[in-house]
Amino acid sequence: MSAPAPTRDDKFSFGLWTVGWQARDPFGDATRAALDPVESVHRLAELGAYGVTFHDDDLVPHGSDAAARDRHLDRFRAALAETGLVVPMVTTNLFTHPVFKEGALTANDRDVRRYALRKVMRNMDLAAELGAATYVLWGGREGTEVDTAKDLQAAFERYREGLDTLARYVTERGYGLRLALEPKPNEPRGDIFLPTVGHALAFISTLEHADMVGVNPEVGHEQMSNLSFTHGIAQALWQGKLFHIDLNGQHGPKFDQDLVFGHGDLLSAFGTVDLLENGGPGGAPAYDGPRHFDYKPLRTEDADGVWASAAANMRTYLLLKERAAAYRADPEVAEAMAAARVPELATPTLADGESLADLLADRSAFEDFDTDAAGQRGAGVVRLAQLAVEHLTGAR
Amino acid sequence: MSAPAPTRDDKFSFGLWTVGWQARDPFGDATRAALDPVESVHRLAELGAYGVTFHDDDLVPHGSDAAARDRHLDRFRAALAETGLVVPMVTTNLFTHPVFKEGALTANDRDVRRYALRKVMRNMDLAAELGAATYVLWGGREGTEVDTAKDLQAAFERYREGLDTLARYVTERGYGLRLALEPKPNEPRGDIFLPTVGHALAFISTLEHADMVGVNPEVGHEQMSNLSFTHGIAQALWQGKLFHIDLNGQHGPKFDQDLVFGHGDLLSAFGTVDLLENGGPGGAPAYDGPRHFDYKPLRTEDADGVWASAAANMRTYLLLKERAAAYRADPEVAEAMAAARVPELATPTLADGESLADLLADRSAFEDFDTDAAGQRGAGVVRLAQLAVEHLTGAR
Amino acid sequence: MSAPAPTRDDKFSFGLWTVGWQARDPFGDATRAALDPVESVHRLAELGAYGVTFHDDDLVPHGSDAAARDRHLDRFRAALAETGLVVPMVTTNLFTHPVFKEGALTANDRDVRRYALRKVMRNMDLAAELGAATYVLWGGREGTEVDTAKDLQAAFERYREGLDTLARYVTERGYGLRLALEPKPNEPRGDIFLPTVGHALAFISTLEHADMVGVNPEVGHEQMSNLSFTHGIAQALWQGKLFHIDLNGQHGPKFDQDLVFGHGDLLSAFGTVDLLENGGPGGAPAYDGPRHFDYKPLRTEDADGVWASAAANMRTYLLLKERAAAYRADPEVAEAMAAARVPELATPTLADGESLADLLADRSAFEDFDTDAAGQRGAGVVRLAQLAVEHLTGAR
Amino acid sequence: MSAPAPTRDDKFSFGLWTVGWQARDPFGDATRAALDPVESVHRLAELGAYGVTFHDDDLVPHGSDAAARDRHLDRFRAALAETGLVVPMVTTNLFTHPVFKEGALTANDRDVRRYALRKVMRNMDLAAELGAATYVLWGGREGTEVDTAKDLQAAFERYREGLDTLARYVTERGYGLRLALEPKPNEPRGDIFLPTVGHALAFISTLEHADMVGVNPEVGHEQMSNLSFTHGIAQALWQGKLFHIDLNGQHGPKFDQDLVFGHGDLLSAFGTVDLLENGGPGGAPAYDGPRHFDYKPLRTEDADGVWASAAANMRTYLLLKERAAAYRADPEVAEAMAAARVPELATPTLADGESLADLLADRSAFEDFDTDAAGQRGAGVVRLAQLAVEHLTGAR
Repeated sequence: MSAPAPTRDDKFSFGLWTVGWQARDPFGDATRAALDPVESVHRLAELGAYGVTFHDDDLVPHGSDAAARDRHLDRFRAALAETGLVVPMVTTNLFTHPVFKEGALTANDRDVRRYALRKVMRNMDLAAELGAATYVLWGGREGTEVDTAKDLQAAFERYREGLDTLARYVTERGYGLRLALEPKPNEPRGDIFLPTVGHALAFISTLEHADMVGVNPEVGHEQMSNLSFTHGIAQALWQGKLFHIDLNGQHGPKFDQDLVFGHGDLLSAFGTVDLLENGGPGGAPAYDGPRHFDYKPLRTEDADGVWASAAANMRTYLLLKERAAAYRADPEVAEAMAAARVPELATPTLADGESLADLLADRSAFEDFDTDAAGQRGAGVVRLAQLAVEHLTGAR
Repeated sequence: MSAPAPTRDDKFSFGLWTVGWQARDPFGDATRAALDPVESVHRLAELGAYGVTFHDDDLVPHGSDAAARDRHLDRFRAALAETGLVVPMVTTNLFTHPVFKEGALTANDRDVRRYALRKVMRNMDLAAELGAATYVLWGGREGTEVDTAKDLQAAFERYREGLDTLARYVTERGYGLRLALEPKPNEPRGDIFLPTVGHALAFISTLEHADMVGVNPEVGHEQMSNLSFTHGIAQALWQGKLFHIDLNGQHGPKFDQDLVFGHGDLLSAFGTVDLLENGGPGGAPAYDGPRHFDYKPLRTEDADGVWASAAANMRTYLLLKERAAAYRADPEVAEAMAAARVPELATPTLADGESLADLLADRSAFEDFDTDAAGQRGAGVVRLAQLAVEHLTGAR
Repeated sequence: MSAPAPTRDDKFSFGLWTVGWQARDPFGDATRAALDPVESVHRLAELGAYGVTFHDDDLVPHGSDAAARDRHLDRFRAALAETGLVVPMVTTNLFTHPVFKEGALTANDRDVRRYALRKVMRNMDLAAELGAATYVLWGGREGTEVDTAKDLQAAFERYREGLDTLARYVTERGYGLRLALEPKPNEPRGDIFLPTVGHALAFISTLEHADMVGVNPEVGHEQMSNLSFTHGIAQALWQGKLFHIDLNGQHGPKFDQDLVFGHGDLLSAFGTVDLLENGGPGGAPAYDGPRHFDYKPLRTEDADGVWASAAANMRTYLLLKERAAAYRADPEVAEAMAAARVPELATPTLADGESLADLLADRSAFEDFDTDAAGQRGAGVVRLAQLAVEHLTGAR
Repeated sequence: MSAPAPTRDDKFSFGLWTVGWQARDPFGDATRAALDPVESVHRLAELGAYGVTFHDDDLVPHGSDAAARDRHLDRFRAALAETGLVVPMVTTNLFTHPVFKEGALTANDRDVRRYALRKVMRNMDLAAELGAATYVLWGGREGTEVDTAKDLQAAFERYREGLDTLARYVTERGYGLRLALEPKPNEPRGDIFLPTVGHALAFISTLEHADMVGVNPEVGHEQMSNLSFTHGIAQALWQGKLFHIDLNGQHGPKFDQDLVFGHGDLLSAFGTVDLLENGGPGGAPAYDGPRHFDYKPLRTEDADGVWASAAANMRTYLLLKERAAAYRADPEVAEAMAAARVPELATPTLADGESLADLLADRSAFEDFDTDAAGQRGAGVVRLAQLAVEHLTGAR
């Protein structure tokens, strides 16, 4: 049994900063040379990806003058044209330069906030020009190390102002962009604002243009808080807010590992792919956006390892997709789902047209309900768990 | 220097289940006898608390008949009358009985969901009668151990239906209750739905009566995900949703410790009290609800230790309140705040009436902004951090 | 492709307390009736296990008189004889009764320490009689919630005295028992002494009879500290101290989940089985003791679920064993191992007979060593990682 | 109340790499200029430190020729002479250069291992010349991201060979150096060998010159695994192996924060200082080595913030030392300790000369021991916990 090769229909995309990571880490110097974005476009296309994404500074180094900028962009556009790769998403680097060290959209320094807005806007122009559908915002420097050293509520107020301003910009310009916030709990800041999918969704509900803002959850970011990534994206899907996704791997609460997808918690990855591809077992929607990998090739690897790791992301995804399809198609799984009453959850708790008075009058719901008998019925969860493990391991 | 004694004005409240915990844990039998709720009311009143809270089953054991129920309630009402203690909050036990083992409002079994709704409603009647302002819902059994063994989106749908039904009940009955959801990431379930303050706030935004539903964050629950509790409640306050609070202590990601407030991450507790009491440094609102302790006296303790621990919660809170007041009043702190530009965060990023066109035309915001110079300015955070430590330790 | 059925040669064993867990948790009452140990012995034998283990109180309830004790033991011995099941390991319950709430071998109360020693000794007599090879000690109550409320060094001194006394007892009696310490970081205590495999191994090095004391690592216990279980047992194997093992599943730092083996971090479980079965790729020893499952059937399950989960542990282990064998046998893996220089690690750093003077005189080792060239060579790790994922998922 | 100023007698030392950190992090460029080691020596001396420590490459940049090396060393020696600062500890950088990306003493590549040994030896010569007492080894690159991609037992074998070789070098040269291993669970590697104090102590017990090798625990490193730092150093002290210590701050399992000492878990820091300064309450030894700070000034800070943070480390330590002294001297604490039977733990469990037969014959130890009565006695832990909090906050 072997995994099929990726095709453009699989909608796999990669950030330029992923394969292009030079492997400088907090305790070590770069182990790889810089990679020309044009080469990355060609290599990714050859490997079967359909899209490439970038931060402004990935493509045009900070401080480039207009002529240099044009040169970089022209070469990149040419590579896209040659390969047919698309740019489904674009984002902004609001974290590398020291100017953002205390925050970007929530920096105490108002000048920094204004600069950050302008930097985003400039790159939104490019995103729109390249036909991107999604603009991601990761506020990696928005946060604190010390709770009492920042006006926290003012920070949320400014964050909202920033997002409202950017959404207005997109609207005024008529860009076809949706915004997607990327949550992360910490690193590089001690505690980052909007640390989880939940906090980001909650924040979005306060925005002027809430409808055009969703989330871009990253596997490892939720797992750094030891939260279930699958639950997180299920809530986002259910709220209609899963605008984009960052797939990678992580081994629980530690530094941001950005491993290859599946090289962390593999069972969780299976649940994630099952949800993304197949939606809820009761018919709730699946995900139809790009399958975007935001990972880092291990610092131990050379260029061959970089491209091997890029291929590994796609290959593992497709393997899990195959196994999830088999899991869904297995009659024994269907039988176990039924035994576990999984489909019953789609039935509303109140009957159609049932009033509160009706519910209160229903003695079978309370006075005559045999809680002990109901409590003794097995829920059949472990059988489903083991079926998942056996499908995942290709044993069925 | 010593802490003042608690008074009713401090609005300290305790759950009956806290001091009444018999200290049965996953690996050990109870070490303490059951505590009569009437005794708890009297002891808490003597110690300076103003309120007492409860789950239905704390007061009236599951399975009591109507006569027994009346007896329990009468004795409790009498104790309240004698002591003057109030009941600011009431909640439901939807987790102890085996009937809830697979969930309550999100159980696959529809009968369980209906029973759960009725159980909540019955106790809402009592809550309203006792004059409670807040009704807390902790969905401790709503969740999974296996991502693929539940229809996750259907679970959210049912959770919403449940909350909408309960809010409608409150409204129809004319009860003066607000609902508060209590997030928790795990324990007793492997992954609980609405694992953090963020997820709960996001979910609330989807509710029919979103205005009457807020959150009841618990210190230890957020810290079990290693999230900043102070950030979490700051977002809740900012969204106008901090309806109630559960104060206790925890040492990071491990089992739910429910330590005495301040006996976990003390520096974080300082930030929390500072925010609750003093609000944002720029004037953002403080918290004015009950200071509710949801803790467990250590299993090592006897009855004396129980009451010593109850007193310790209040005493530590008041100590931190004193130190936070001194921190805010210290001119050196004010000076350090100014140097760190903390107040500047209250200034909107765009000028009053400034249009996007204006911002784009402002060359000082981008083209002429000296990022290198701005990046070299120190943000003055460590000085504030050390001032906080020195105030907390009473060294200033 | 399907997993083979377990046989006695697989050396699978289960604790009576695992299948017998009544599913009482910190927030919920028991959902299952007590299980007769005799029934457990028969069911486990039918499922293919070869051994059963127990705490004293699992078999003979605390407080039983001599006659009751004899009755319980007689029935158990008969069940062993009927089924052919062996008792490879026995342990003591030093945690359930309130008397141990502040510790057992390290309790401040000397009377409790003496009682604990006697309780262990009594059960060692039974262990020896039943032919057990290993006696496990889990000090679940040895620890603190407050660093400053215990004489920590005295606790280690008493812990050592306890272990030395017990080892002497085994020696004096001529029992063929080896002792195995089971580390755990927390739960039920806030911080347990000997929190990891490392701390236990270090402590053992101080014992009078260090040679007869090893460790009994549990998958979930190390993962509660987010440590690599495979690394931990590799160090124990290397130190000749992996006397026994507890297999189960866990999802990172949270309460002790005791999931079915493989239902937590599956990729880590693959690495563990590969090491246990195949030893080091350079020939370092594998593990030859019992494959012991120390898990808890989910609280959602009824009796059917209990036995399904017991079977799932063995089935998953055998699946992983098959896949690990295929991984080791795959020529592409061998080639990738060689490319990654994995075998070279077995070559000593110094040549045979090389002196320090020789090393210092070897200019190729330092002065002439081209660090930049060496730093550019890829280490080939990601390829091996992906080969492991593909073998684990049955894709090769 | 204010903290006393640090003096040389306090034995405070700092690594050159701490104040000299340029604040390059995984997501950001340096925010501070390089610091001349000579300036650091002078500034640290002015602030009250007594010692300075370094990695070889902190003082002499990698690749310097002999003349440059001499120049760097001469200037540094002169600064030491001018200020009177000592060099109590020296260490080696085996992690920054790409050559170490797959390990140093445990690299698969034997040439890298040989180079690493030589690099350490060269710097040991310097350490000895400067009169250092301790040589620290942090194996930051010794580890894996993938369990199955390394011969783990061979890695331990090579690690042992490396340490044995280095210890022999020290012995042969007659250097007065002791070696101290610094454990860390992860970052920069996914899982580092010897992840905790326990694993390092266990490993040391296997060494040829075990007597001259101890540990250098770092607060944040243990807390990254959510382990009690105080317990860890208590075990090291008890085993006579606390050769050196790295003080800093951390907020639980996340990236390595290297905060100012006390700016993380303050209550734990109190317990740590109490143990270091006062030893066990029963008289077990305190720590008498350097109080070494291994922290990083926040990336938000400029040079003023760097020195403010250096001062904050010492000031917080002295504050905690004062409060710990008051805690120990408080008669109420002594009374609470006695009530909690803390001193009784120093009494051996067996009486002087008591044989196993005596213990078995003592019916009061088992047959007649009233476990229920003993289980009901309160252990008085919460009172001690609260006394600690009140002393820490200066409320007593």
